[in-house]
Amino acid sequence: MIPFRRAAVIGLGLVGGSLARELAAAGVQVSAFDANEEDLRAARAEGIVRAALPASFEGVEGAELIALGVPVDATAEVLSRLAPRARAARLIVDVGSTKATVVAAASRLGLGERFVGAHPMAGDHRSGWAASRPGLFTGASVYVCPCPETRAEALALAIELWNAVGAAVVRVDAVDHDRRLAWTSHMPHMTSIALASVFSDAGIAREELGPGGRDVTRLAGSSVSMWTAVARENPEPIAEALHELECRIGALRAAIQSGDADALASILSRARGWFDAAGAAASTTRT
Amino acid sequence: MIPFRRAAVIGLGLVGGSLARELAAAGVQVSAFDANEEDLRAARAEGIVRAALPASFEGVEGAELIALGVPVDATAEVLSRLAPRARAARLIVDVGSTKATVVAAASRLGLGERFVGAHPMAGDHRSGWAASRPGLFTGASVYVCPCPETRAEALALAIELWNAVGAAVVRVDAVDHDRRLAWTSHMPHMTSIALASVFSDAGIAREELGPGGRDVTRLAGSSVSMWTAVARENPEPIAEALHELECRIGALRAAIQSGDADALASILSRARGWFDAAGAAASTTRT
Repeated sequence: MIPFRRAAVIGLGLVGGSLARELAAAGVQVSAFDANEEDLRAARAEGIVRAALPASFEGVEGAELIALGVPVDATAEVLSRLAPRARAARLIVDVGSTKATVVAAASRLGLGERFVGAHPMAGDHRSGWAASRPGLFTGASVYVCPCPETRAEALALAIELWNAVGAAVVRVDAVDHDRRLAWTSHMPHMTSIALASVFSDAGIAREELGPGGRDVTRLAGSSVSMWTAVARENPEPIAEALHELECRIGALRAAIQSGDADALASILSRARGWFDAAGAAASTTRT
Repeated sequence: MIPFRRAAVIGLGLVGGSLARELAAAGVQVSAFDANEEDLRAARAEGIVRAALPASFEGVEGAELIALGVPVDATAEVLSRLAPRARAARLIVDVGSTKATVVAAASRLGLGERFVGAHPMAGDHRSGWAASRPGLFTGASVYVCPCPETRAEALALAIELWNAVGAAVVRVDAVDHDRRLAWTSHMPHMTSIALASVFSDAGIAREELGPGGRDVTRLAGSSVSMWTAVARENPEPIAEALHELECRIGALRAAIQSGDADALASILSRARGWFDAAGAAASTTRT
C-alpha cells in the first residue's frame, strides 16, 4: 500500500515518470512539473497527472509526498525553491544517481527530518516521459540514503513507498553510496560513452557491431544532461574507477601483444568466473 | 534452398550447432564431430545429427558441404586432417571470428578453390551446443572471405548457403576483415572482459550492477578458449584499437577530474549522437 493520498512529482523522466505511473495506479492524486511542456501534457492526457504545476511550484502545498526526478546538479536548487511550499509533505525523496550533495542540501535547507534520498537501480539508456513505464521498479534494488536527522517515521514511509512499487530497499550512507556507485554504475556508463566516441571518430556505425558490441555501447544512448551532472557530482571516485580500468585494459593489451596464451587465458578465465558466479539475471528486452 | 544433400559439421557450438540445425531443418543429412561427446550425443538425440564422426573424421568423405565451427587457432589443424577426406566437398566453410590465418591455411592445404571463410555476426556471450538455436542467422550479417583461388562456383554456393539461413552476405578480403573486426568486435569484447576483471578484483558481484552495467559486462561470459584464440590470431589490430580506447577513457577521466562541464557535455553529446544515428536495432532477449 502506498501511504499517501496526494503526491507531487517534479521531473517526469524515465524514473520520475515511472514513479508517477505507480502512484496514479495506486489511486494517489498526482500533480507534476516538468520543464518539457509536451511531456507534462502527455502525462496529463494519459490521466497519470491530475494537475500540472507551474515552475514556481505553486500548488505543491497539499502534497504529502514530494518526489524529485531532475538531473542531480539541479536537485539542490529545485529543493530550495520547494522548501517554503513543502510544509504538508511527510516525505520528500529524490531518485538521482548520486546522493551526497543532495542529502547535504536537504539538511542545509531544513528538510532533513523528512528527506530520504533514493537511487533506484532501474534506469537504462532511455530517458524522458516516453521511456517511463509501469513495472520499472519490480525486482530492482533501491539505495536509500537518509539525512543524519531524518525521522524514523519518514524513513519508514520511504521504505514502504519503494517496497510498494516492487523494489528491494538497501539502506546506505550517502557518501558510501557515491563511492560504491562510481564503480558499479558510473564507470561502466563512462566506458560505454568512451567506446561510442572511439567508434564515432573511427567512422564505424553502430549497425556494424554484432549483438555483443551493441550491448557494450547501449549506455552511450543515455541522457547527456543527466550523466554530465553525475560526473560533476562524483568526480574523484569515478576518476579512480576509470583509472583502474585503463590499467586493466593496458595489461590485457600487453598480454595480447606479447602473445602470452597463458596470461590471456588467465585473465579471460577470471572474467568468465566472475560472470558465471552471478545467478541468471532477469531477462530484458532492449534496443 | 540449401544446395547440399549431405553436410559435415565439425564443432557443434553456438554457431556450428545453429548451422547444423538449419541444415537439418532443410532436409540436409548432417554428420558431425564435437570434442564434447555429450554435446554430440545431445545433437544426435535431438535428431539434428544423423551420424557422429570420429576424431579421425572417417566418414566425412560423402559430405558435399564441410563446415568448421572450432576455435580459430584449431581451424588450420582440423583443416589439414580433413583435407585428404574432403574430395567430395563442393564447399568448405568455417565460421570463426578471424579470417586471415584460416584463409591462408586453406590455400596452403590445396583447399582454396573450394574454401570460403565466413564470420557470421550472430554470436553473443553464450557457447556450446546448448546455446545453439534455430533462427540465429536471421537478419545477421555474414562476412564472407574467399581465398585468392576460390572458384566462382564455390563462392556462389557459399552465398546461397548463407542467404538460405537468413543472413546478409558482405564480401571482404580476409586481412581487411581482421583489421576491421578488431574494432567492431574484438575490442568491445576485450573491454567487457577488462571490466569484469576489475569488478572481480574489487569484490563487486554482477548482481550489484544495474541493467546498464550488466549489458556492458555480458561479453565477459564468452568462451575463454574461443576468445584467447581470437586474441592470438589478431594481436596487433586488437592492441591498436584497445590503445585508442585507453586514450579516450583517459581523456574522459581528465574532463571529469577537472570538472569541465562543457568538455564533458561535448564528449557525451558526441557519443549520444553516434548512438542516435543508428536506426532502432532488432530487440533481443538476454541474460
